[in-house]
Amino acid sequence: MEERDFDVKLLPELLEERRFVEARSVLSEMNPIDIAIALGEVPEESLLKLFRILPKEIAADVFVEMDSDEQELLIKGFSDAELQAVIREMYVDDAVDLIEEMPAIVVNRILRHTDPATRKEINELLKYPEDSAGSVMTTEYMSLKSSMTVEDAFERIRKTGDEKEDIYTCYVMDPNRKLQGIVSVRELLLSDRNQLIGDLMETNVISVTTLADQETAAKLFDKYNLTALPVTDTEDRLVGIITVDDAIDVIQEENTEDIEKMAALLPQDETYFETTVLQHARNRLPWLFILMFSSIMTGLIIEHYEVAFQTMPLLVALMPMLMDTGGNCGTQASTLMIRGLALDQIRLSDYVKALGKELRVALLVGTCLSIVNGVRVYIQYHDVKLAFVIGSTLLFVVMVAKCLGCTLPMLAKKLKLDPAIMASPLMTTLVDVSAVFIYFQIATAVLL
Amino acid sequence: MEERDFDVKLLPELLEERRFVEARSVLSEMNPIDIAIALGEVPEESLLKLFRILPKEIAADVFVEMDSDEQELLIKGFSDAELQAVIREMYVDDAVDLIEEMPAIVVNRILRHTDPATRKEINELLKYPEDSAGSVMTTEYMSLKSSMTVEDAFERIRKTGDEKEDIYTCYVMDPNRKLQGIVSVRELLLSDRNQLIGDLMETNVISVTTLADQETAAKLFDKYNLTALPVTDTEDRLVGIITVDDAIDVIQEENTEDIEKMAALLPQDETYFETTVLQHARNRLPWLFILMFSSIMTGLIIEHYEVAFQTMPLLVALMPMLMDTGGNCGTQASTLMIRGLALDQIRLSDYVKALGKELRVALLVGTCLSIVNGVRVYIQYHDVKLAFVIGSTLLFVVMVAKCLGCTLPMLAKKLKLDPAIMASPLMTTLVDVSAVFIYFQIATAVLL
Repeated sequence: MEERDFDVKLLPELLEERRFVEARSVLSEMNPIDIAIALGEVPEESLLKLFRILPKEIAADVFVEMDSDEQELLIKGFSDAELQAVIREMYVDDAVDLIEEMPAIVVNRILRHTDPATRKEINELLKYPEDSAGSVMTTEYMSLKSSMTVEDAFERIRKTGDEKEDIYTCYVMDPNRKLQGIVSVRELLLSDRNQLIGDLMETNVISVTTLADQETAAKLFDKYNLTALPVTDTEDRLVGIITVDDAIDVIQEENTEDIEKMAALLPQDETYFETTVLQHARNRLPWLFILMFSSIMTGLIIEHYEVAFQTMPLLVALMPMLMDTGGNCGTQASTLMIRGLALDQIRLSDYVKALGKELRVALLVGTCLSIVNGVRVYIQYHDVKLAFVIGSTLLFVVMVAKCLGCTLPMLAKKLKLDPAIMASPLMTTLVDVSAVFIYFQIATAVLL
Repeated sequence: MEERDFDVKLLPELLEERRFVEARSVLSEMNPIDIAIALGEVPEESLLKLFRILPKEIAADVFVEMDSDEQELLIKGFSDAELQAVIREMYVDDAVDLIEEMPAIVVNRILRHTDPATRKEINELLKYPEDSAGSVMTTEYMSLKSSMTVEDAFERIRKTGDEKEDIYTCYVMDPNRKLQGIVSVRELLLSDRNQLIGDLMETNVISVTTLADQETAAKLFDKYNLTALPVTDTEDRLVGIITVDDAIDVIQEENTEDIEKMAALLPQDETYFETTVLQHARNRLPWLFILMFSSIMTGLIIEHYEVAFQTMPLLVALMPMLMDTGGNCGTQASTLMIRGLALDQIRLSDYVKALGKELRVALLVGTCLSIVNGVRVYIQYHDVKLAFVIGSTLLFVVMVAKCLGCTLPMLAKKLKLDPAIMASPLMTTLVDVSAVFIYFQIATAVLL
C-alpha cells in the first residue's frame, strides 16, 4: 500500500523529467488493477502520456479497470491505431461494459474501430436486459467436441486458449451448439491422453438461461462452488459463460442493492460520488414521502388522545422510548427474515416456525425490557400505576413489533415484492402506529 | 427444482421397498450438494441407510455439504472403516470445519481415525484465530520448483493433483518454503514444454499473512479477480491458500454481519433457525438497552417543554412525523456511507467532499419535504404560523440528520470501530433528540 502511494506521486515527476524508462519500469512491476487506481490519481494532462508508456501487453488490462471518466478521456486522446489495439485486446464482455458507460459519440468511434465479428457479438450482448444472466456473460469460452481425445483437447486449448476468458472449464457441444456436458482442465490433466472427451464429460450440468436474473446465477456460484457457469438460450444452445469474478461483482451489487432498499433508498448502479446531488435527492425522496405519510397517521392517532396527555403531560415524554424500542425490535426481526430469505436459509413454508420463534424471543426480550423500564419509571416518578402502564405497553409493543418484523418480509416475498423494502424505516413507522395506539389504550384505561 | 423434490420424496420409499439399485441410480444422477440438501429432508432413521448406498466417490463430497446435526448423526452411526474412508477423502480445511462443529466426544473419535500427518495439519489449522485468513485456508495446494520445466510441472500435477483443492494456480517455493512466485495452469498450457518455471512465474504475488482478517483476504479476491490467494507466515513462507469458493462464503458472511450490525443485532455465525431462542434474545438485548437509554434522553428533553404542548396539544401530534422523517434521512445518509466505506468507494479523506454533497442533497430534499408538509399543515389546521414552524423545523432536522448520517460512520471508522453500528437504529434515536430540541425551540419562539 505505502509502496503504491510512493509510485503514484513519483510518476508525473518522472514524466516531467522525461525519465520514461524509469517510469515504465516502475509501472511494469505493478499489478494492472493497482496501475488503474494510480492513474486515477494523476493529473488529467499526464494520463494519456502515462498510459502510452505502459508495456503493450498490460495496457488493455489497465484500461479495463479504469473509471469511465478516465476511459472516456483516454479514448478521446487515442489515435485510431491505439483505440483498435486496446479494443482488440479486450474481452467482449468488458467491451460491452465500456460501451454502456460511454456517450453516443464515443460509442460510434469504438464500434467503427472494432472488427465486424466482434462488433456483431457486442451488439448481441447489448440486447440482453439489464441485470440478466445474458448481460454479464462473456462469449469467449473454450468449446470441445465429444469425439475429441484428451490430447486433441489440449491441442485445441493451446491453439485457441489465449483469447478465452476462462479455460479451466471446457464446454462440449453437439453440431447444433447444444450443450452436452462439461469437462474441467483438472479432469483432462489427470486423465489418460487417449481418453475420449465424451467419456470424461459431466453431463449433469448446472446452467442458466440468458434471461435469468443475474442474482439467480450468482446464487448458483455460491451454492455449488462454481468457477464458471454456462448460459444457454431457450433451446439449450450454449451462448456464453459467466466467470466467477463477475459473479462476485454481482453478489456485491445485489448486497448493496438490498442494503440500500433496507435504508429506504432507491438502489443505484453508480457509486456514491459518481451519483449527482439531484440523482441522490431523487433516490431518497420517494420513500421519505411514503414514510412521512404513514407517520402523519401516527400523529392523527395521537390527536385522538389529546385529553389523555393534557391530563398527564408525562405520557408524552415517555412516548419516544416506546416508539423507538418497538421500531428497533421490529427492525431486528425483519432484518433477520430479509437476510435469511435472501440466502435461502428461510423459506416461505417456514413462516409458522419462524413466527413461533419470534414470539418466544419477543416474550423473553419484552419481559427484560419491561421490568427494567418499569423499575426505572417507578424510581424516577414514584408512580406504580405509571410504571405498570409503561411496563405492560412495552411488552405488548415488543410482541407486536416482532410479529410484524417476521410477517411483513414473508408477505412481501409471497406477493413477489422484494422483502428488503420491509426493513428498518418502514418497520419504524408501522410499529409507531401500533405503539401509540397500545400505549394510549392502556394509559387511558389504567390512569384516567 | 421440481425434479429434485420428486427425488427426495421418492428416496425413503425406494429404500423401504429395498429397491437399492434404483435409489442409487437416482442419487448418482444428482449433484452432491443437492443430495446433501435432499438428505437433510429425509427421516433420521433413513439417513444412514441412504448415505450407505451413495456411490463411494461422491460420499465424502455429500458429507461435507451436510448440516452439522446430520453429520453428527452419521458419524455416530459410521463403522470405524466408514469414518476413516470419509475423512481420508475430505480436504483438510473441510475436516477442520467439521471438527469445529462437533462435540468433544465426536472430535476425539474423528481424530483417532485420522492418519498422523493429517491430524498434525488439522491441529495446526485449529490454532488460527476465528475469522483470520489462516482459519479459512487449506494446506492442500500445488507446489512447484523454479528449476522445473513445464513438462516436469505437468508430470507433478498429474501425480499429486488429485488431492489438491485447487490446481490451477501453482506456487513456486525455494528450499526454505519461501514463496518465490506463482504460475497458472493456463500459462503452463500455453507455453513451450521445455520452458523453465522460474522464467514463466509471476513474482509480483498478491498474498496475505495467516493472521490477516478473512475480510481483508476476501476483498483481495474482489479487487484483483483472483481464483486463489496464497497465505504466508510472518517469515514469508507459504503455509496455505484460500480458494475462491471459500472467499465467496466469507464475502456473504461479512455482508450478513454488516447487515445484522446495521439492525442493532450482535452478529452470529449460525443461521436463523440454528440459533436458539435464548441466543436470539442475547443478541438483541444489548443494543435495545443502549438505544432505550438514548430515547429516554429524548423523553427528558420533551419533559422540559411541557408548557409548550400543554398550551398547544397539536404540537405533540406533529412530533412523530418530524422524528421519523429525520431518522429516515439520517439512515439513508449513514447507510450510503457505511456501504461506501465497506467497498472502499469512500475513504476517510473524502469526508469534507461527502459532507458537502450531503448538505446539498439535504437542502434539496429538505426543501421538498418542508413545502409539502407546510402546505399540508396549513390546509389541515388553517394556521400559517404552525405551518411555518413545521416547515422550517423539517428543513433543519433534515440538514442535521444528513450531517449526522454522513459524519458518524466516518467517525466510527476513524476510531477503528465498525461503521456499521452507526446505522438505522442508532441514527433514529440520535436524530430524535435533535429533532425534538429543534422543534420545540422553534415552536416556543414562534407560537408562544
